Amino acid sequence: MPQDVRFDLPFRTPVSQHLEYAREQHLRWVRDMGLVRSQAGYEEYQSWDLPQAAIRTYPHASADDMVVLMNWFSLAFLFDDQFDSGSPDGADRIAEVARELIVTPLRPTGTRPRVICPITVAWAEVWEQLADGMSLTWRTRFAASWGRFLAAHSEEVDLAARGTVLGLDDYTAFRRRTVGIHHSIDAGERSRRFEVPAQAQAHPVMIGLRDAAADTIGFMNDIHSFEREKRRGDGHNLITVLHRERGYSWEEATDEAFLMTSERLRDYLRLESEVPQLCDELGLSADDRDRVRMGVEAVQHWINGNYEWALTTGRYAAAKEGPAATAELQGRGSLDDLLPV
Amino acid sequence: MPQDVRFDLPFRTPVSQHLEYAREQHLRWVRDMGLVRSQAGYEEYQSWDLPQAAIRTYPHASADDMVVLMNWFSLAFLFDDQFDSGSPDGADRIAEVARELIVTPLRPTGTRPRVICPITVAWAEVWEQLADGMSLTWRTRFAASWGRFLAAHSEEVDLAARGTVLGLDDYTAFRRRTVGIHHSIDAGERSRRFEVPAQAQAHPVMIGLRDAAADTIGFMNDIHSFEREKRRGDGHNLITVLHRERGYSWEEATDEAFLMTSERLRDYLRLESEVPQLCDELGLSADDRDRVRMGVEAVQHWINGNYEWALTTGRYAAAKEGPAATAELQGRGSLDDLLPV
Repeated sequence: MPQDVRFDLPFRTPVSQHLEYAREQHLRWVRDMGLVRSQAGYEEYQSWDLPQAAIRTYPHASADDMVVLMNWFSLAFLFDDQFDSGSPDGADRIAEVARELIVTPLRPTGTRPRVICPITVAWAEVWEQLADGMSLTWRTRFAASWGRFLAAHSEEVDLAARGTVLGLDDYTAFRRRTVGIHHSIDAGERSRRFEVPAQAQAHPVMIGLRDAAADTIGFMNDIHSFEREKRRGDGHNLITVLHRERGYSWEEATDEAFLMTSERLRDYLRLESEVPQLCDELGLSADDRDRVRMGVEAVQHWINGNYEWALTTGRYAAAKEGPAATAELQGRGSLDDLLPV
Repeated sequence: MPQDVRFDLPFRTPVSQHLEYAREQHLRWVRDMGLVRSQAGYEEYQSWDLPQAAIRTYPHASADDMVVLMNWFSLAFLFDDQFDSGSPDGADRIAEVARELIVTPLRPTGTRPRVICPITVAWAEVWEQLADGMSLTWRTRFAASWGRFLAAHSEEVDLAARGTVLGLDDYTAFRRRTVGIHHSIDAGERSRRFEVPAQAQAHPVMIGLRDAAADTIGFMNDIHSFEREKRRGDGHNLITVLHRERGYSWEEATDEAFLMTSERLRDYLRLESEVPQLCDELGLSADDRDRVRMGVEAVQHWINGNYEWALTTGRYAAAKEGPAATAELQGRGSLDDLLPV
C-alpha cells in the first residue's frame, strides 16, 4: 500500500492551533467562490482534508492567514485536477488559464483577471492577500516560482494529451518543476511575516537545499499518491516510470522509488548542515541569521507537514468508492468543471 | 517639435563599435524570422534605426551579443505596434501572445512556444541566448520585470480598445509599468556578463533609483514620440494627458512634461549619489561594490543611450510620408501582421 510507506524524518515540526476556525471559514469560501459546485464534488473535496496540510506546512500563520492559505491550496489542487484525459482538447483551455494564473502576481494587486473562471477569480483574491506586506523582491521570487510551476503543469497536461511518456532522467528533472514546492516554501515567509535575506536566497547552498527538498517531496508524493494516479491513468509518477523503464515489478519499483527519495533527503540534510557556513561566508548579522534559520524551518515544515498529511488524506486513498472514484475510472479529472467562462 | 526637445544630462556614456557587424546580421535575422514581411514594413523598420539604440544602451556587449540584443529590440518594438485601433477585437489575441511571451522565461530554455507566431518563436530563440550564463536569481528578476511590462502592455491595449482615458496620477503609475525599463536594465547585466549583488538589488535605494530612471525615460519618451502617438490616436502620452486634464495648450503641456521629466531626473541623480552609502550599509566587498557600480552604469547607459537615439530615430519623426504614415492615419498599428498562427 504505497500510501502507508513511512520515511524516517530526523526532525519534528509544529502544528497550528487554528484548524477549526480556519477550516470553517475556508469551506464556506470554497462554496461561495464556486470552486466546488456539486454535493459529490464537495464531499470529495472535504475528504482530501487540505486544512490538515495547511496547519502542518504553515504552522506559524495567524488564524486569518491560515484561511488565506487554505483557500490558496484549494484552488491550486482543484486546478491540478481539471484535465480530463477523456477529452484532450481541454489542454488548450488549461494552458490559457495557467498563463492567466501566472500573470496575476505580475499585475498590481486588485486587478480583475483578464481570463475569467472560478479558479482565476479566486486566485486574484488570494494573491492580493498573500502579497500583503511583502517586498518587491519576495513578490518577484514568488511570481517566478509560481510561474515555473504552472508552466510545467501545462507541459504535463500536453504530454498526457499526446500520450507522451518520459524516461527516468527527463522525468526527475520534470518532477522538480511540477511538484510546486518552490513557491510553497516562498509562501512560508509570508505565513510567518518574515523574509530570507536576498543574498542568502541567491546562494548555491540555499538553491541546492530548495531543489533537494522539492525532489524529496515530489518523490514522496509519487509514492503516496501512486494508487490514485494509477487509477487515473496518470503515467507521471516515479513508480510508473521505474516500472516501465527498468522492467521492475510494482513492488521493486516502489522499493527503488523509496531509495531514491531517501537519497535526496540525505542530500537535503547535508545541505542544511552547511547553512551556518553560508551565513559566515556572507557575513550575516544575528538578525539576518535568524531569518535564514526561519527560511530553513519553512522547508522542514513542508517536508514533514506534507508527509504527515499524505499518510492519511482521502485524496490518495487506494480503495475508493462513490462519484469521485467513478469519475476517475472514466478518465475525468474532477467532478466539477471549473474552467468555463 | 517635441522630438527635438533637449535635456541636460550630467553624464556621458560610451557607444559600442559593433554597429556595422551586428546590424547586418540583425537585419538578415529580422527577415528570416518573418518579423518584417513587406518591403514597406522593412523600410519603415529600418528607419527606426534600433541598432543605434542598442549600441548606446548596451555599449559593452560583445559583437555577437549585440546581434542578440538588436534581435530582442526588434521583436519587442514590433510587438508593441501590433494593436490596430481600427479593429479592437485584436486585443484578445495580443493578450494571448503577451501571456505566452511572459511564460517563455519560466520554461526551460529551448522549449518550443505553446502559442506560435513570428513574435513568440523569435522570443524563445532570443531568450535562450539572453539567459546564457546568468544565475537563477537574475533569470527570476528578469522574468518578473519582463512579465510586469507585458501585463501592463496588454492593459494598455485593453484601455485603448475600450477608449478609456486615464487621469494624471493613474497615468504616471501606469507609465512606469509600460515603459519597459526594468527588464531593459536587467539585460544590461547580461550584456556585460556581470550581476548586481542580490542584497544591493533588493535595497530601497536601488529600487527607487530604478523607478526614477523608468519615470525619466518614460516621460522623455512621451515627449519625443508625441507626434507619432498623436498621429496614431494614442492617448497614453504625458503631453496628451496634461493637455486633457489641465486644459493646457499643447505647448504648455509640453513645457509641463519637460518639468516633470527634469524633476524625476533630479530624483534619479540624488538616489545615485546615495549608492556609496548603500554599499557601506551592506558591508559590500570591493568586488561587490564594483558590480553595483556597473549596475548603476547600466541605468545611465539606458537614460542617455535612449535619449540620444530618440532625438533622431525615424520612429518618432513628426513629418512622415509613405505606407507607414498612411497605415497610421488609418489607425493601423503596423504594416505587417505578426500575430496570426
